[in-house]
Amino acid sequence: MMDIFNILKERRSIRKYSDKPVSHELITKVLAAGQWAPSGLNNQPWRFLVIHDQGQKEKLAGFTKYSCIIKKAPALILVFLDHQATYDRDKDLMAIGACIQNMLLEAYSLGIGTCWLGEILRRKKAVAGYLRIPANLELMAVISLGYSAEEIKKGKRHLLNTMVLGLAKKETSCPTK
Amino acid sequence: MMDIFNILKERRSIRKYSDKPVSHELITKVLAAGQWAPSGLNNQPWRFLVIHDQGQKEKLAGFTKYSCIIKKAPALILVFLDHQATYDRDKDLMAIGACIQNMLLEAYSLGIGTCWLGEILRRKKAVAGYLRIPANLELMAVISLGYSAEEIKKGKRHLLNTMVLGLAKKETSCPTK
Repeated sequence: MMDIFNILKERRSIRKYSDKPVSHELITKVLAAGQWAPSGLNNQPWRFLVIHDQGQKEKLAGFTKYSCIIKKAPALILVFLDHQATYDRDKDLMAIGACIQNMLLEAYSLGIGTCWLGEILRRKKAVAGYLRIPANLELMAVISLGYSAEEIKKGKRHLLNTMVLGLAKKETSCPTK
Repeated sequence: MMDIFNILKERRSIRKYSDKPVSHELITKVLAAGQWAPSGLNNQPWRFLVIHDQGQKEKLAGFTKYSCIIKKAPALILVFLDHQATYDRDKDLMAIGACIQNMLLEAYSLGIGTCWLGEILRRKKAVAGYLRIPANLELMAVISLGYSAEEIKKGKRHLLNTMVLGLAKKETSCPTK
């Protein structure tokens, strides 16, 4: 087994793409990776819709201020919570987060850039209406996919010791000893 | 870059552990992996508490029906949502799911088994009271960690084409052509 820390650390949101399409085969692999996320009682509350059609992308772009990303991404994966599969909203949302993360990581390891888009959720009912999504499905995220056409940026995170209870205090007290 | 599909697919929940402790260094790497998850506006709403103490584990075991896992795991990572960092509960919960998934995957790639425990959330206020957790932190998951002492099981997932809108219909219509 290989330590995948660098893959987890170096994945970035990619917002600009080349025109090169993402093959059906690779999209299917990304979706399958999402499927292997864990979920409470293994209820797998996620559902997917893949969009390649330029007309549909243009229309979806009208529902978010991040319209350029949506219009220019070669493919989109819309992720839904299925209310017929849900058993606990908090846990189901965390499971969907794990599912999305699996897809972002798999795409990255295949050389495909992604961006996890959430702002469009402010118009999720309008999106569902336009796409005629069944009433039991609630939009939770849009993932844009394509081959990167941007410089790799460095990510920023808080210092780990400020995120772990007890550690910050211990470190503060060290110099007094 | 290496395709990590098999790592995503072969990670399993591990509920029985050997007595071998998990080093501080590896726990820190698992937490750091969690930190590299994406979050909306990069708000990083997760916070962590690491527990090794047997007395504390025994006490926590009293708050869940999965007490054996908690008692016998060499280490636990408690994951909290920080209400002072939150901006949208749905998105924050998905971000925490992505963070947890990063930790499960990193642990797996380091040879450490994990189990994502959620049933204990039914007693999250009692857990917070016992551990004197600040009021702004809400327990979202307990992750048990240790070296596996169980057989590897095969995972089960729904067929992908039943999870992707439009595909099931297309496949059904194929044989009529």
